[in-house]
Amino acid sequence: MDERLARVWLATAVEEARAGLAEGGIPIGAALYGPDGTLLGRGHNRRVQDGDPSAHAETAAFRAAGRRRTYRGTTMVTTLSPCWYCSGLVRQFGISRVVIGEATTFHGGHDWLAGHGVEILVLADPECVALMRAFAQDNPELWQEDIGE
Amino acid sequence: MDERLARVWLATAVEEARAGLAEGGIPIGAALYGPDGTLLGRGHNRRVQDGDPSAHAETAAFRAAGRRRTYRGTTMVTTLSPCWYCSGLVRQFGISRVVIGEATTFHGGHDWLAGHGVEILVLADPECVALMRAFAQDNPELWQEDIGE
Repeated sequence: MDERLARVWLATAVEEARAGLAEGGIPIGAALYGPDGTLLGRGHNRRVQDGDPSAHAETAAFRAAGRRRTYRGTTMVTTLSPCWYCSGLVRQFGISRVVIGEATTFHGGHDWLAGHGVEILVLADPECVALMRAFAQDNPELWQEDIGE
Repeated sequence: MDERLARVWLATAVEEARAGLAEGGIPIGAALYGPDGTLLGRGHNRRVQDGDPSAHAETAAFRAAGRRRTYRGTTMVTTLSPCWYCSGLVRQFGISRVVIGEATTFHGGHDWLAGHGVEILVLADPECVALMRAFAQDNPELWQEDIGE
């Protein structure tokens, strides 16, 4: 996909990540865009805020998008490489593309998704790296809890 | 694991599936048990009831169990073979075992999980098969929506 558009969409996910951080949560954000570029849903990790371990950024954005007949042509934009849980979501529901802010601080299942026909774009965004690096350094136990380590 | 105990735990997941059906929802139920056999959380698919596509049975049970430092030694019991989304959940959070009511009407990611060290027990339970078979026959579009097909 067009990298400039991908960076515009990433800004929505970064806004979500910052909102999560401001709430005292884990700074990971995501947004689901439709084939025509419509924003279908956006969200951020809510483990701390809601005490909900199932609310990863990608699942929150997916939930916010509500029920849909198909995800063909949709793009999941996330500030961080999707974990296996969120990668499984992308594969099961046939989400066509994943735009990833960074895969430096955490490397999830995006290679596996690429092997199953999902278009992957890793942007190596410095702000996304800085957000996660600072958070994981200051809150190592919380971050490990969020990824089951 | 002991198959008799697995069948006792499966009864909890079947109760959840029946509750979902009674609410007009998709009849898939799940329960998460701790290493000592404590029931940590239970739930059922809530796509129809809550308009929430992220609420699969396994994710609902996981959410109900709340935040935990580790899932080592836990068992996810589900009436139906876990889809990629729910299989990803099991892998990411290091859930040790999955007890599956049936994998006849739907074959998800449990072979993949077995290949990654998760203990898998498929019980081939006739009631679980009957619940899903009848539901999928009567509601093919809803069932396909739930698995993104």
